[in-house]
Amino acid sequence: MSLDNIRIVMVQPLYGGNVGSVCRAMANMGLSDLALVNPQRLNMDDARMMACHAASVLDDRSECASLAEAVAECGVVMGATARTGLYRQHAKTPREWAHKALEVAEAGRVAIVFGREDNGLTNEDLALCTQIIQIPTTEEFSSLNVAQAVMVCCYEIFVASGSYEGPEEKSEEAPSGLRERMFGLWRDTLLDIGFMKDDKAEHMMLGLRRILSRGTLTVDDVKILMGIARQASWAARNVPVGDAGEVKAENVCQA
Amino acid sequence: MSLDNIRIVMVQPLYGGNVGSVCRAMANMGLSDLALVNPQRLNMDDARMMACHAASVLDDRSECASLAEAVAECGVVMGATARTGLYRQHAKTPREWAHKALEVAEAGRVAIVFGREDNGLTNEDLALCTQIIQIPTTEEFSSLNVAQAVMVCCYEIFVASGSYEGPEEKSEEAPSGLRERMFGLWRDTLLDIGFMKDDKAEHMMLGLRRILSRGTLTVDDVKILMGIARQASWAARNVPVGDAGEVKAENVCQA
Repeated sequence: MSLDNIRIVMVQPLYGGNVGSVCRAMANMGLSDLALVNPQRLNMDDARMMACHAASVLDDRSECASLAEAVAECGVVMGATARTGLYRQHAKTPREWAHKALEVAEAGRVAIVFGREDNGLTNEDLALCTQIIQIPTTEEFSSLNVAQAVMVCCYEIFVASGSYEGPEEKSEEAPSGLRERMFGLWRDTLLDIGFMKDDKAEHMMLGLRRILSRGTLTVDDVKILMGIARQASWAARNVPVGDAGEVKAENVCQA
Repeated sequence: MSLDNIRIVMVQPLYGGNVGSVCRAMANMGLSDLALVNPQRLNMDDARMMACHAASVLDDRSECASLAEAVAECGVVMGATARTGLYRQHAKTPREWAHKALEVAEAGRVAIVFGREDNGLTNEDLALCTQIIQIPTTEEFSSLNVAQAVMVCCYEIFVASGSYEGPEEKSEEAPSGLRERMFGLWRDTLLDIGFMKDDKAEHMMLGLRRILSRGTLTVDDVKILMGIARQASWAARNVPVGDAGEVKAENVCQA
């Protein structure tokens, strides 16, 4: 699996909370290989709290003395930077690089490198990178929290991997014949309850069709709507007039 | 500007750090309208620390007693949920909904709603939503930190808005004529320094062309490569043989 071959590298992280948040983001997106380069006395309680159910990513992390060591086995090394400059002009977005990362990760190892919380990646760090990632942001405030930057990159890779299957609507879209039966029933009901008179019916039904045709209408939706119509007709015949009659006048269609 | 019409709503946030991280993520992605529904004694020091340079989003937040109040002016109300179930089957990804949010935000107001840290949005909350967002994740660990969830949604909306312009390579791609002059120069140099003999030259040059044709080669890149070739030829003529001659044998092309 390509995702297993993608290593997230944090250079000199300062805050345990950020390292924990990175672990959680990685686990959400199916990554598990985290390397810390020269971490600075991290608060591991914070790290564990923010890692939440991704403690295994935290526990299994590697620690390296240098970035060169952390990426030594990686064919492709992508560095994330918010700054621009002479040697950062060929940066591309995480979405543009995601397929490249996955393609290389099919057979080899890929590193995605994130810099210090206070300072990002230096030119020396970037020299080790084969690609530069720039995350789209406003110009006014381009500095992302490091765990947020990791999330955006991991998310783009996960989406590009095609691993995600969205929830599936169990009920099919209603076929035209069923929809027409429903509209017929509603027509009868709106006449039964006195919402419209016969001469206004066609006009009013176009309004109702417009309202109910804006999105998908599933078989289940149509069944609910048919049930309401039938019950309203039944109630109009069976509920004593005094109980429901008072507000009738103002509800009647004036179209 | 559409982004100004998009409100981020956090229902009963528990942790100031998360609220601050949300502020920063919003500011990174050009959003500024944050509403908190019934916040629970937040640690505002944590909030301010994590908001970083986005303190204005934090300071300008609204606080509401109910979700209904927070979204009352919003035509489209999108709720983010990780859970699936009968009334969540029609969820779509943030990428699928981003254009819809921007389209509506051109003329009206849009809310994107995020649930409690411990429990997400209830069915009662979702009843107020016109759309449901599900962020792609692995099935094994689908619960995102709330600030990470906000980041992914804001990021997708910002990218869809087309506001981002990537860094631009200032140097143009080198035209074929310039590239050919460079390869000619390298051919001469590789002969001058004795890296290849005349009879292997065509073969070797194909290898060099292959190496240098894998990506874009800009005018600046070609100038650097031509400079190296010229200097190597110069050095081969001017540096005394004894200084550079010892390692010569093993460098010579054996192709």
